[in-house]
Amino acid sequence: MTALVLIDVQRGLQQIGFYGAERNNPDAEENCGRLLTFFRKKQWPIFHVKHNSTNLGSPLHRSKITNAFHPAAEPLINEPIFEKTVNSAFIGTPLENRLRTGNINSLIIAGLTIEHCISTSVRMASNLGFNVTLVSDATAAFDKIGHDGNNYPADVIFHAELANLKNEFATIKDTNTLLDDLDI
Amino acid sequence: MTALVLIDVQRGLQQIGFYGAERNNPDAEENCGRLLTFFRKKQWPIFHVKHNSTNLGSPLHRSKITNAFHPAAEPLINEPIFEKTVNSAFIGTPLENRLRTGNINSLIIAGLTIEHCISTSVRMASNLGFNVTLVSDATAAFDKIGHDGNNYPADVIFHAELANLKNEFATIKDTNTLLDDLDI
Repeated sequence: MTALVLIDVQRGLQQIGFYGAERNNPDAEENCGRLLTFFRKKQWPIFHVKHNSTNLGSPLHRSKITNAFHPAAEPLINEPIFEKTVNSAFIGTPLENRLRTGNINSLIIAGLTIEHCISTSVRMASNLGFNVTLVSDATAAFDKIGHDGNNYPADVIFHAELANLKNEFATIKDTNTLLDDLDI
Repeated sequence: MTALVLIDVQRGLQQIGFYGAERNNPDAEENCGRLLTFFRKKQWPIFHVKHNSTNLGSPLHRSKITNAFHPAAEPLINEPIFEKTVNSAFIGTPLENRLRTGNINSLIIAGLTIEHCISTSVRMASNLGFNVTLVSDATAAFDKIGHDGNNYPADVIFHAELANLKNEFATIKDTNTLLDDLDI
């Protein structure tokens, strides 16, 4: 069985100044919303993962209004939410156990950010034996200053991480292709 | 207590044609050897992690001579070896348990490749609560063809992944700086 796992689709990840100077894929949250609508219509399993930062200054700290889900990915009352304080959706949460007991072996993963929580969760999901599809336009990256002092633009961080995950850890599809493939 | 964790320092990862068109940091294995010599002299804990690929065609398949440790990082008889078949050194191995029972909370991680097994293991080590230092010139990347069809050179893959891991998951130091800092 296939489940949708949406990770950290929260308002705070639109606060670009805190995480970098720029972010790519401004429509990532809307594409997460399209995935959600599709899975609800099919009545297929949906799992929301939410980050509660331990850093008081973070937009994702529980005390901040920006800790809230993005309006495009607001959970319904019957959709389980797994709260976490680290990057991996599988560490400190019962997510793995819930997937196993639900006979779910295939995961559609989307959310933010590709280079931190998405990559960590995709890598771990794959290494735990799940069949993972990462939705390329339903995730996004921030730019970074490298260890070498150079700036790595959001698009470079995004495409390098996508290339690292491709084949080794996940199948990569965009939202349109994925929804076409699933809607059979 | 601080331990050295060397991951996949095996001959096969010098077979550049199999993994890409080029690899950066040709001295990575020699730098792993320098870390090993230092930790042996100090009699500090050392853990070797070895990859046994499940892909028959891989240079790291157990049937291949290139599955062997690189000569620079050959384990001594008293140094534990953890064999794995996935990227993370913590999945399917008793490594986490051995570190916890040894009261080890700080890890120096080096080996190959930064974008696959090193990144996955560093991310998971950090999320499990270990204090991680990644040795920048004792790891290396291969180039990749991106999902967009563009080529991402080994140096770009390397620096983008280092930037993703820096601060969020690990402290980054080169071998000389690390050995100076540890030799107090």
